[in-house]
Order: sequence, then structure tokens, then C-alpha cells
Amino acid sequence: MIVPFAVRDFLDRATTVYGDRVGAVDEPQQPARPWEGLSYRRIGELARAQAAGLDALGVPHGARVAVVSPNSARLLTSFYGVSGYGRVLVPVNFRLTAEEVRYIVEDSGAEVLLIDPELTERLAGVECRHTFTLGEETDARLYDFATDPKPPEPDENATATLNYTSGTTARPKGVQITHRNIWVNATTFALHAGVSDRDVYLHTLPMFHANGWGMPFAMAALGVPQIVLRKVDGAEILRRVAAHGVTVMCAAPAVVNAVLAAAQSWEGEIPGRDRVRIIVAGAPPPTRTVARVEAELGWEFLQIYGLTETSPLLTVNRGRAEWDALPPEERAGKLVRAGAPALGVSLRTSEQGEVLARSNVVLEGYWRQPEASAEALRDGWFHTGDGGTLDEEGYLTISDRQKDVIITGGENVSSVEVEDALFSHPAVEEVAVIGVPDERWGETIKALVVRAPDTEVDEAELIRHCKDRLAGYKAPTSVEFRDTLARTATGKLQKFKLREPYWQGRERGVN
Amino acid sequence: MIVPFAVRDFLDRATTVYGDRVGAVDEPQQPARPWEGLSYRRIGELARAQAAGLDALGVPHGARVAVVSPNSARLLTSFYGVSGYGRVLVPVNFRLTAEEVRYIVEDSGAEVLLIDPELTERLAGVECRHTFTLGEETDARLYDFATDPKPPEPDENATATLNYTSGTTARPKGVQITHRNIWVNATTFALHAGVSDRDVYLHTLPMFHANGWGMPFAMAALGVPQIVLRKVDGAEILRRVAAHGVTVMCAAPAVVNAVLAAAQSWEGEIPGRDRVRIIVAGAPPPTRTVARVEAELGWEFLQIYGLTETSPLLTVNRGRAEWDALPPEERAGKLVRAGAPALGVSLRTSEQGEVLARSNVVLEGYWRQPEASAEALRDGWFHTGDGGTLDEEGYLTISDRQKDVIITGGENVSSVEVEDALFSHPAVEEVAVIGVPDERWGETIKALVVRAPDTEVDEAELIRHCKDRLAGYKAPTSVEFRDTLARTATGKLQKFKLREPYWQGRERGVN
Repeated sequence: MIVPFAVRDFLDRATTVYGDRVGAVDEPQQPARPWEGLSYRRIGELARAQAAGLDALGVPHGARVAVVSPNSARLLTSFYGVSGYGRVLVPVNFRLTAEEVRYIVEDSGAEVLLIDPELTERLAGVECRHTFTLGEETDARLYDFATDPKPPEPDENATATLNYTSGTTARPKGVQITHRNIWVNATTFALHAGVSDRDVYLHTLPMFHANGWGMPFAMAALGVPQIVLRKVDGAEILRRVAAHGVTVMCAAPAVVNAVLAAAQSWEGEIPGRDRVRIIVAGAPPPTRTVARVEAELGWEFLQIYGLTETSPLLTVNRGRAEWDALPPEERAGKLVRAGAPALGVSLRTSEQGEVLARSNVVLEGYWRQPEASAEALRDGWFHTGDGGTLDEEGYLTISDRQKDVIITGGENVSSVEVEDALFSHPAVEEVAVIGVPDERWGETIKALVVRAPDTEVDEAELIRHCKDRLAGYKAPTSVEFRDTLARTATGKLQKFKLREPYWQGRERGVN
Repeated sequence: MIVPFAVRDFLDRATTVYGDRVGAVDEPQQPARPWEGLSYRRIGELARAQAAGLDALGVPHGARVAVVSPNSARLLTSFYGVSGYGRVLVPVNFRLTAEEVRYIVEDSGAEVLLIDPELTERLAGVECRHTFTLGEETDARLYDFATDPKPPEPDENATATLNYTSGTTARPKGVQITHRNIWVNATTFALHAGVSDRDVYLHTLPMFHANGWGMPFAMAALGVPQIVLRKVDGAEILRRVAAHGVTVMCAAPAVVNAVLAAAQSWEGEIPGRDRVRIIVAGAPPPTRTVARVEAELGWEFLQIYGLTETSPLLTVNRGRAEWDALPPEERAGKLVRAGAPALGVSLRTSEQGEVLARSNVVLEGYWRQPEASAEALRDGWFHTGDGGTLDEEGYLTISDRQKDVIITGGENVSSVEVEDALFSHPAVEEVAVIGVPDERWGETIKALVVRAPDTEVDEAELIRHCKDRLAGYKAPTSVEFRDTLARTATGKLQKFKLREPYWQGRERGVN
């Protein structure tokens, strides 16, 4: 019997087996009723009501529903209210500018736009057929508790979510993630991370980011309470771990650093010692960070590697029994690798050293970009754009990011996009945007600029120029002025050469 | 990207990530080289060699390869050597008679028959195009290490194994289990049982039985060493748990009873206390058994429910945090239920109380039996033939086996098949075969017989008559002679009435 894989399977199990359990704990400041300490049963009801409300609005199955929100219970339930009932959720990075969000809404053809109350002002100019402010407005006008939602046609290869990512071009591309992608990712991720119904999950990772790595699905399947964290704050993470008995979280390296910093001034025992697993990805952390997590927090460190295009799980690295007796630094050296292929993932590297992957977690394609899709999926392999090596233990280490992407504080930034913004300044003649190592953010953005003849411009002005046009995290944190920039014979910027002086003495050219 | 699910994915991960680990420990008496303490890399090589050997024999992809063997490393590797390379493994119950095996070989159209050395004498009369004795003969003549096997056409909906089961009719039916069935079963089973790469698995369950519940696949994916147990023996199980650091095993209730009995006379501390998980199915155990496992062994008791037709995982029952504080007997009462639906499984009960299931673990169909397949899968649901109830916690309890199947010591026996054997005796005029409760086997087989006029026959003669024709475990352990048997108006035996006096005072009509 073939039963099409569906996003709703995860919530169905939660409502059937864990209906009385707390499924989500929203932020304290969110309207308390009915959103605080939601049972899984209530999440199921809210998802149905949201789907019925979309029916009532005349939003057809297959339509896109964009949501711009920090982590919240309303965002969490929308994965099911939208994708669970035949529509396509477009979770948008809440740090984007109005212009950037407008592009995504238009490109995706979204018919509905849901905006967090804190963002309505910033996004006031973004138009959509139906726009709602999440909270009192959606609660009063969107959710229909009285009607049964129309059942969607089951199709495991239909797109469930459209996740916009910065890639090699200035404009973000919509990554089509299918129900089957989500199913395989959530199931294998939960398996490799050892998730059980005794876990408690903290959403440190933004849910817009590769659907929170699939955790809204994986955790529901096992009845795991999901604690919402709206804004990353190291001390607040420690407080929530203590208050809710958190056992597992996912985090970018910058979040790990924030927790380590908060732990320095934490009074008393660090909460979660010998209990918490912290799953890190986004950029490979320094070996010292891994060792510090285990020594100073007493938390288990797991690393994964993947991309929005891969749902994201490609590799996982969890401490093996074989390493238990190793000295801490050597053990950390094992854990600092991106990891071993997850079940069902085939990895290889191209002659050029690019990491290629085949798996059911690989995207269906880029939304309405057949050429980019064909390019990324050529020869039956997904081309990650990252350089890496596979060692004799079958473990992957990422050595270089071939795509022009900078990962800063867990956010992907297309250097081309930042270069475009800088080029729009009349004093900029040439520009190269690169990532340079940074203690706090892993990488930070540096712009190398050649001024146009007879112009004057300084670092502060160019940074401000970017901040006016892009989400703040995309702006360079430093600008250096040069007379020329290294280029190939065909005039292409030699970024690896430009990056080189900043990365000297390091094993890898990415962080 | 859609990558067809394949049985080989599990071994591929093992060879890539856990190549150096011991993958299988065969029985000590098996020829030591190269079969003892096989690394996963070696298992991969053996599987390739077996596939190349089948290529060399001219056995095409899609062909059936039957294997009759107690648990052994050769049987384990055949799951990959045969099903992993495009052919269909038919794992046959090694307790069957030559006549029964002949039927399965013919019905499946097997082109190759692999027989364990201990069984060659009993099965001497069974013919097949290619017949090999597992061991020196296969090692010398079947495995081809010099040639690459031909890659099969990937198809996740192709049949991977054909598992013969006793059903409502006398003749066993071939259950077609696809690669997709196996993938979803193994993945969700491992997830719900909390399998990790720190586990060590003991094959107490026969691998022919629903492919050892999918454990040969699930365990390989996580690099778990698989300890082979050829013959169930309570004390030997305890010894292996101690010797190999076993952490998880699957077992029929009769095996649990054997371990409990052995523990009574075990000297010193019971091995595996607070470490072993024992996963039980086949027939619901008495509450007292559950409590004894946890008290006397200190092992964690998990229950699952499923059938060969469902790969088998439909429900799982593992102790929840909510129950930790309950008194032992009450906790055991929670665990004695069949369990909650596994991820991706939908359950309901029909108006008649029959348990119906929808899931990707449900069989493709019965081999060459379109009518039986359509009947079992009518209305889009698999009809289990078992009666049960779903409680308000979403947990299933099996209350009655509607199909005419007796489960004795973990073996399914078709009562119709035993009745047929008894009918072949001239002194038998009417017969009803039923399961009655038994301390050791859960159920044991009782025959109620009406003698033909003017004939003489006693209990011992009828039991011997059955043993001559059927596997020993299918023979009745007792015969009662009656003047008449309760029948419906249409002449059908009223088995529930016949069973009633033996089950009085019990909650359920099955064990």
C-alpha cells in the first residue's frame, strides 16, 4: 500500500497519541489565550481552523501563504494549518526589509501574507491579496473553528514549503521542499539525534530557516513539547532550559557562543548538564568551541551539515562509543567535522572538490527557475556549492564554500546581493564582498571597495548605504578601500585570493 | 529529488560510516572464516559477492531466492545479497516440513533454494533449479568476489521480500513486502525503539519471521552489531547479553518466559539490568509478565503490534514519562496494551470491531492472489483480522483474533491447516482446532474431534498423525473428543463458543 507522505502525519500522531501534552509554549508576552501552553490537541484544532479560514477566503489548494514572523506559536501552527492542508507555506526571514519581503511575496505569488505585530510598521508597504497581522487580527478573522477544512488531494511530491535562500545571485530563490522531503528529513533527523517522547525542545533556531531544520515536524511526531524562543539571548536560553527541562536544541555557532558567554556569568550550576543535546550547523565551529560546550556546559555537542536545499539534513556527527576514551581535544577534533551521511544520503565530491549529494531530502527545484534547478541538479546530483573532503571514516569536512555565500550568525548572505547594494552608491567603482573570520559570528562581512575617480566616500557612509537597502545583518561590518581588486584573466573576481590574507593560519576558508 | 527507497540504503550507510565495526557475530559452531565477527565492510563485500554469484548463475533481477535457515550470518547477509541487488528474498520458516517448503518454493517460483546444513536431510526431496547448502557449498560455489554485480533498476515499489504467512486458509500466502515498506518500517521502528549506534542487538527473533521485524535493516543503518542467536534458550540469551553487552532484542512472549525462567536459576546479577530493552509482540503478554520483566530482569519492556502483512510495525508501546510514578502493576497495565500508532500509521476499528490500518508499511499484496489481496485491502484499509479497541489515549488493545490463527510460542498457525491434517485421518468426522491459554506458549493448540461412526482413535494417534504431516509446532498438544460441535445455522463452526470455556475469567480471547 502506498500512502502519500504528508506533513500532517506528524501532527496527526501528536494529536492521536499526545493530545493532552503541551505541544507549544509561546512567548510570555504573546496574547495568553488560547496560545499559551498549547496542547497538541489544541494545535490540531488551530491548524484545522486556519485551513478552514483559508478555504473561506477562497484561497485554493496549492496557493502560497507567506508568513513573516520571529519564532511564535502562530508560526509553528501555520506549518500545519497551511502546508498540512494542501497549501504552500512561505516562511520569510523576519529581518528582511520591506523591499526584500515584497520581492519574495511577488516571486512566490503569495495570496496571503501573515505578519508579526512587531513587523507591521516596517512592512507596511508590502502588498498582498490578503494581509493579516498575526495575533488578535488572525484570531478574530482568519481562524474558522466551525467548519471542516476541505481535504487536499494527497501528493507526497507536491511542494509543502517554499523557502527563500540567498544563493549565488543577488535575488533569493524559492526552494521547493516537498512533503516527501520533509518526511524523510524529519524522520532521519529525529532518528540520528535520538529524539524520544521524553525530550523537550527549545526553538533557538528561527523556524523560517529551512523550516527550523524540520524540528516542528520531527518533534510533533514524538509528542515533544516545543518551547518557543522569539529572540536569541544566551542567558534567556539558560533560563528556559532550567524552567522547562529542555533536553535538545538546534543552534548556529553564534548562538553557541552566546550561551557560552552567558554561562560565564551564570550563578550556580549550569542547567541541563548531562541532559541537553545541542545540534549545531550553519558554519563549522572551532574545535575549542566544541570542547568548551562539553566542558563548561556539560551539554552533548552534535554537528550536522546541510542546506535549505536539502531540508536540511545531509550529514550528522554525534559522539561515538569509539571516541569516548579519547582526550577532550581529540574528541572535539572528531566532532568538528560536518559528519557522516544520514540514512539515505549518498555523498561524493567532484573533481573540483565540490560536495555533491543524492537523497530524498534534496529539493524538488527552485521555484519557477528551471535553469537554476537544472544547473543545481545536473547529472542526478545536487551541487552544494561547498568544497569538502570525505575521510576514510566516511565523514565529511567542509573546507570551502564555493558558492558566494557568507554565513554570519547563522544567516546566509549572498555576497553578490551586498555588492549590488554597494554598486548603487555613485562613489563605488569596484567592489568585492567577502566573509572574514569573526569570534562572535563565525564570519562577518567585509567589503573591499575601489572608489570611482574624483569621488569621496568613507566606511560609515557605505555601511549606512547598505543598511538603508538591506536587512541589517547583510550590511558589511567593515569596508577597506583598495586601488585594484585581484581578477582572473577573464575579469572575474578572484575571491579566494582576496579572502586569503584574512584566513591565514586557519585550516578552513569558511567559518 | 526523488531517490527510490532501497533495502541497500541501510547497508550502504553501515559500510560507509561503520565499515570497521563488527556487524554480525555468527554462532560459534559456524565455520569461522570468513563468517565470525563480520565487519560491516565484510558484510557489504559478501552481499556484493552473493549478488554477482546469482548474476553468474543466470538468475535474473526480480527472481525469487528462497532461504530456509535458522538465524545465521549467511541468512542475514542474504537480505542484502538478494534483496539489495534486485532480487526477491523468500525467507522460509525453518521448522516447516519438506512438503510445506516444497509448496512455498513452487508457489513463489523460486529459482534458487538455500538450505541450512542441519536441514538438508529433512528437505532432501524439495526441488529447485539451483539448490545450495549454506556454508562450505555456498562459500565455494555461490559467492563471486571477482565480479561487480549488475546494478538493478531502482524501484521502491518493487517487491523486496516474499514472506509466507499462515492466514485464514490452509495454504500459506506470500506477503509482498516492497523496498518502500521495509524503509518506512525500519526507520520508524528504530525511531520509536530509540535505536542508536551505541546499541548492540541480539537476534532472538527468527529472521524469517517478518524479516526479523526489519531489524536486519534498522540495525545496519545505525552500525549496530547484530549478535546471531540460532536457537532460543533462556540461559543462553542471558549469557550472550553478558558476553556481548547486548542492549536490545525482540521476542515473542514465549521467549520472554524462557528468559524469566532462566533468570530464576541464574547465578549472580542478571546481565543487562537498566540497559536492555526487550521488544515484545506476537501475542499480548499477561500484565504479570510485564511487571516481572521490569522487576526480576531490570529490563525495559516495550510492546509492539503488527503482522507480517505490515512489515510489521503498526503500534508501539514504550513507557512514557507520565507513567513513571505509577505503581508497578498499574504501569504494567499501561504497557500491556498493543500500543499507539507508529508515525505514518492510521488505525481505526470497523463496526464489527476489526482493526484496520493504513500505512506505508502495509503489504503491496499477496503474491499471485489478486482476490485475497483485494479482500484484505478493500476500501483502502488493510484488514488485520484482529479485533481490538482504541482507547482515549489513542492506544490499541487487541481483544480477539478474528482470523482463524493461533499464535503459539510466537509462531502463527492456521487452525484450518491443522484441521485439514486431522481430517485426513479416516476416524475424524468433524474437527475444530482452537487456541487455548498456556502459561509457557501464550496459546497452545487444542483439537476438538467428533469420531466417525464405528471408528477408534486416541489422542496420541491424532497428534502423531499431525506431526507426520506438519511442522511439529503446528500439531495439537491435546485432543478432546466430543459428540457434536457448536455450529451456526449455516453450518459454520462457532469457534468463539468452542473457545469460551477455556478462556473464562480472562479479559481477552487471545494470548
